[in-house]
Amino acid sequence: MIERTKILLEENEMPTQWYNIVADLPEPPPPALHPGTHQPATAEDFKPLFPMALVEQEVSTERYIDIPGDVLDVYRLWRPSPLFRARRLEKHLDTPAKIFYKYEGVSPAGSHKPNTAVPQAWYNAQEGVRKLTTETGAGQWGSSLAFACAQFGLECEIWQVAASYLAKPHRRTMMETWGGRVHPSPSEVTEFGRKLLAENPDHPGSLGIAISEAVSEAIEDETVRYALGSVLNHVLLHQTIIGEEALLQLAKVGETPDVLVGCTGGGSNFGGLAFPFLREKLAGKMNPVIRCVEPAACPTLTKGEYRYDFGDTAGLTPLMKMHTLGHGFVPEPIHAGGLRYHGMAPLVSHVYELGLVEAIALPQLECFEGAIKFARSEGIVPAPEPTHAIAAAIREALACKESGEDKIILTALCGHGHLDLASYDRYLRGEMRDLELSDDVIKAAMLDVPEIA
Amino acid sequence: MIERTKILLEENEMPTQWYNIVADLPEPPPPALHPGTHQPATAEDFKPLFPMALVEQEVSTERYIDIPGDVLDVYRLWRPSPLFRARRLEKHLDTPAKIFYKYEGVSPAGSHKPNTAVPQAWYNAQEGVRKLTTETGAGQWGSSLAFACAQFGLECEIWQVAASYLAKPHRRTMMETWGGRVHPSPSEVTEFGRKLLAENPDHPGSLGIAISEAVSEAIEDETVRYALGSVLNHVLLHQTIIGEEALLQLAKVGETPDVLVGCTGGGSNFGGLAFPFLREKLAGKMNPVIRCVEPAACPTLTKGEYRYDFGDTAGLTPLMKMHTLGHGFVPEPIHAGGLRYHGMAPLVSHVYELGLVEAIALPQLECFEGAIKFARSEGIVPAPEPTHAIAAAIREALACKESGEDKIILTALCGHGHLDLASYDRYLRGEMRDLELSDDVIKAAMLDVPEIA
Repeated sequence: MIERTKILLEENEMPTQWYNIVADLPEPPPPALHPGTHQPATAEDFKPLFPMALVEQEVSTERYIDIPGDVLDVYRLWRPSPLFRARRLEKHLDTPAKIFYKYEGVSPAGSHKPNTAVPQAWYNAQEGVRKLTTETGAGQWGSSLAFACAQFGLECEIWQVAASYLAKPHRRTMMETWGGRVHPSPSEVTEFGRKLLAENPDHPGSLGIAISEAVSEAIEDETVRYALGSVLNHVLLHQTIIGEEALLQLAKVGETPDVLVGCTGGGSNFGGLAFPFLREKLAGKMNPVIRCVEPAACPTLTKGEYRYDFGDTAGLTPLMKMHTLGHGFVPEPIHAGGLRYHGMAPLVSHVYELGLVEAIALPQLECFEGAIKFARSEGIVPAPEPTHAIAAAIREALACKESGEDKIILTALCGHGHLDLASYDRYLRGEMRDLELSDDVIKAAMLDVPEIA
Repeated sequence: MIERTKILLEENEMPTQWYNIVADLPEPPPPALHPGTHQPATAEDFKPLFPMALVEQEVSTERYIDIPGDVLDVYRLWRPSPLFRARRLEKHLDTPAKIFYKYEGVSPAGSHKPNTAVPQAWYNAQEGVRKLTTETGAGQWGSSLAFACAQFGLECEIWQVAASYLAKPHRRTMMETWGGRVHPSPSEVTEFGRKLLAENPDHPGSLGIAISEAVSEAIEDETVRYALGSVLNHVLLHQTIIGEEALLQLAKVGETPDVLVGCTGGGSNFGGLAFPFLREKLAGKMNPVIRCVEPAACPTLTKGEYRYDFGDTAGLTPLMKMHTLGHGFVPEPIHAGGLRYHGMAPLVSHVYELGLVEAIALPQLECFEGAIKFARSEGIVPAPEPTHAIAAAIREALACKESGEDKIILTALCGHGHLDLASYDRYLRGEMRDLELSDDVIKAAMLDVPEIA
């Protein structure tokens, strides 16, 4: 009898609630602060940016929040997503460990991002919003939001980091296919963009700059709101459907994880997978090591400081207490692996500070080497971001080979790499190299961060 | 109660046999002929090209053929594939029809092609073959074979039509990620390639030329065989797992199709979906209209002749009786929709001649218009090939809206379009146009086809 490779859930087994980790933490996370007064931000402060339902979720302490029926209907286009046992990778590594991966690349946009794009679009549509603005780097988030907006008849306007806009035209086409309107950032559309272009007409842009542009467009128009694809509490909340499904799927084969590894950029994929397992751990039902895996080129948790910082470059957003490399930080262009955001989700930062999760930083060559092994055994070509999680899982599996332990390793393959093959090309031609981030660079990026007691 | 959007099968529900339509046809299909003698080709004639197990399948009259366990193991990486009810598209079209689509884009290569690549690689590995050669156009087949070869430790060498090699570097990277070696075709590697390059150093290539190069490399080396991704009987045989699964899935929701539409290039996706349903129709268990949908720019069934022709441009392959535009036919470069092969699978041609299936040709603008509608409602961005099937399904659904009929429409979405977004870009920018193929072009391409009584 062959054991299962793919563990599926039927549509009627899909979880109908998101999980809010805040309800179960030993201490509450520090509040966001108003960018001007540095006082705890009120619902009123968030109102120009987000619909009230999302603001309420952002500060909620409820343990579970119902997923609206219309959102479940769209989730059903690809959810429940499969959980795979990586049998062929295990065999290739000759490890006694069992590796499971939750695959989010089955979504229309090819990543986990639609899990939050869809409810964000829906809540905005419910409150009469006409258009959503957002930023995107490589395009995973922008395409997810364009898809989600198309489902509920919203307009979608996207500022894409100029370097990506030029280098990756196909993601832009994908956004346009779903009806999105895309600008390179910095753009001529906003004052902040025009200012930067005046200084440097070939400005390559950054996520922080693109956020500033998208935010400034939203706050100027009553019928427009802004949407963020990671970092915030409500985003991580929506992503917990990943972990909730994975719990049900592992239960079907009678397993609990010994080690959970997830890649962390803004933190939404990691939080989405890990928080439901952290709940089980806090309740004493299982005891996995839970580990964040970040790129050595953008080591927010392992080298950043835990302090209040802005979410964007221009300083328009509320201040959030988080691990940050400084809101002006821009990773070196040689870094191919995504996960380029200067900060880390406040909730992930908080559980890290509480010692509930660990963190490591991996160099990109090891990540792509792992990705090639994965692609040749498991078939799926991973997006650059989850190559970090895969490389960490491979490290664990090889340690098990040494020790003879048959640990259960769980990770999330949060997206496929079909639109990121240029990075694979660089790796295969030997044109990729590692870069260790110097302390001076980090120190310099931190100079602008406000001092808050 | 919400009805299902996605109809799944568990791994243990996956069919374990392929279906051979030849066993159930009122008359047998005409045999392949030796390219030199024009006598019926023997197993010996196929031996330099294919392993004996595949040659036996090529001429088999057995109704069912067991799928080897090793092949089922690899299939489990993505199979059973989902059957979707296109609820959101139906709503957008405001049609009483129910549209179901079998989605093959969940495979590692993103299309139905691995369904045959995997068994072809396995049978070759069983017979001690060291390397497989093949051709590829846009790269769907080449990447599928590279993936399959990686599963069984075979080398894989691919000739990619030069125009695609240059215009679509990402598919090449995908093939290399799975360990394949890729040449632009015509290439300096083969005599035929060198001859063409001497005449025109910028030769754009064609599928027929690439087949000639791959075949010539295989027949020169005892340890090398050739693999073809469509057209042949054994290829269509392997693809019937699509239709067998779809039958089981429709049965789960108590439906039988009134109309089945499938896109046809070489015919393997169509045959794979349609033949199990044709078996049921021949047995009187259901009575669907079954319709091939081809591009107006390469209208093999609707404008080609039914006669013996070569599978490749140089005339190295056995002669097959099929609908053909002439083995020298090359579609206009403005045609974006794939399905560019000059011939049609002999088995599909045969059932068409027997009147068991119908055929229509669609212009590409209608196909892309349908694809955009599909992407904005169902989420998935289709590959150019299945846009033909989608456009045909939309025609049917709109006819139902007129007539008030609630027909059950079934089609296959044989691949996603993540690596074909350049075509979407052309469409969205209004740079795509239709082209009606003139009778003179077809007449000219037919001049080279041998006269066989």
